[in-house]
Amino acid sequence: MTETVLAVLNQPSRDAAPHDPAADAFTWAKPLEEHIQVQDLGITRGDGVFETITVVDGRPQALEPHLARFGRSAAMLDLPAPDPEAWRQAIEAVCARLDPVREAFAKTVLTRGVEGTDRPTGWVYAAPSGDSTAARTEGISVVTLDRGYRHDVERTSPWLLQGAKTLSYGVNMAALREAARRGADDAVFVSSDGYVLEGTRANLVLSVGGRLVTPRTDIGILAGTTQADVFRFAEQEGIETAYELLTVEDFLAADAAWLVSSVRQAAPIRQVNGNARTIDAALTTGINDFLLAREV
Amino acid sequence: MTETVLAVLNQPSRDAAPHDPAADAFTWAKPLEEHIQVQDLGITRGDGVFETITVVDGRPQALEPHLARFGRSAAMLDLPAPDPEAWRQAIEAVCARLDPVREAFAKTVLTRGVEGTDRPTGWVYAAPSGDSTAARTEGISVVTLDRGYRHDVERTSPWLLQGAKTLSYGVNMAALREAARRGADDAVFVSSDGYVLEGTRANLVLSVGGRLVTPRTDIGILAGTTQADVFRFAEQEGIETAYELLTVEDFLAADAAWLVSSVRQAAPIRQVNGNARTIDAALTTGINDFLLAREV
Repeated sequence: MTETVLAVLNQPSRDAAPHDPAADAFTWAKPLEEHIQVQDLGITRGDGVFETITVVDGRPQALEPHLARFGRSAAMLDLPAPDPEAWRQAIEAVCARLDPVREAFAKTVLTRGVEGTDRPTGWVYAAPSGDSTAARTEGISVVTLDRGYRHDVERTSPWLLQGAKTLSYGVNMAALREAARRGADDAVFVSSDGYVLEGTRANLVLSVGGRLVTPRTDIGILAGTTQADVFRFAEQEGIETAYELLTVEDFLAADAAWLVSSVRQAAPIRQVNGNARTIDAALTTGINDFLLAREV
Repeated sequence: MTETVLAVLNQPSRDAAPHDPAADAFTWAKPLEEHIQVQDLGITRGDGVFETITVVDGRPQALEPHLARFGRSAAMLDLPAPDPEAWRQAIEAVCARLDPVREAFAKTVLTRGVEGTDRPTGWVYAAPSGDSTAARTEGISVVTLDRGYRHDVERTSPWLLQGAKTLSYGVNMAALREAARRGADDAVFVSSDGYVLEGTRANLVLSVGGRLVTPRTDIGILAGTTQADVFRFAEQEGIETAYELLTVEDFLAADAAWLVSSVRQAAPIRQVNGNARTIDAALTTGINDFLLAREV
């Protein structure tokens, strides 16, 4: 048992080569050693997809929605479909092997593989999560940043890969650095035509007149697994939910707002572009208690 | 001597840690072995920069402009500055060690390193280039594809990293696949407001009324090292050159057009969006002869 646990998939996609049903799904590997070749397209071109899955008490949460989105992202990149059974086995094995810890995460990565081989590369590792208590209770400050794209590019220009969770996250990381430069914890992307999109690694959820509202998922953003479970919580509580086109003004005028994601879960937004905003502490606690108690 | 030659930089950036002037600039490594950890931000986030340098008869071309752009890209990503002397040494060493071959390429990569270590990772490898004869003589077919961004985002929204040569090239690769789907060899990106930008891995050069014209480099595109040398050739030949804002209509109306880049050099465009266009064979030969004969 070690702090980080790594499994390398023996055959991340069934389509990529004849499948040997007798082969193990994965091979254990040492996380602090080197496992990727310099000519892997995942590193030379950011050409691959990933998922980050919350692990509570060794149990991966929202595993099936994460596997489904992993497959959708792969399809958007014309990658051979990840074999759900092999990935499920590997994810469950790394989670089981992790040192006992309340909150951890598992990260799955599928790349196009070493150039010229036509064999995708895949691995999953799990490690304890950092402490998100402050973000969940005191909240986070965000800035709004231009994403440069119209809200409809996912439909007009699918090669821009908006809505896929790819390894090409350079812009997301640069936006995080820009947020820090402006004294904020995170950024919320805005389309070039004025609609709020998503965080750098999270979805936006608003409380508006007693309803929970999130941006429509056909506008070039990720369909959030955590956001979906926040809506499950809402339905259980009798709170109405909706997917809508939301403007920056809607965001600023909302009664409360959160960035929701795996690992950090629901982080209430206490400041936007330097201006304080209200936190709904009771609702935040309810949401995070629900999220951390998920059995699936 | 092997087909691919790989050197791993011992200290890719001087800023990142105390510099040991006695240490070698690089360590030889086996290219078909694994050298990157799964938690390197280059692979998890496409968080790094690269250059591809043409190598003719063992001689790296436009080495100093490539090193300068490598540094500019790193600065745009807030990466510690690559140490030019260490990289120059490593590039020259891999080129010298390569099996004798007319055309090869060297690829330099600098990543933010393994998460939490604050130590960038860097390597350079060289390998023989594929045969570009057909592209240079018969020409290539291209399609124009929406890049989704206005032509001014490099100035308004620098966190979009337009103009930096990053490892987050997922969109470039997806655009190449879209071009193939449409029966074309490559794509030329167009801004959301109608200006031609660049190829997926190349710059666009047009012949217009006896002048050579290329898109202005402040519109979110890479300043081309090969394009700069095409303009050097033009000046030597008494051909006027210019950097301009060019519309799709300018591109379609040009007397001749090329995608110019390291490795493939000048590829004349013989078809745009399915419509044939004229190739200037004599000028193309002149340009490529000049490019392949470069001493620096």
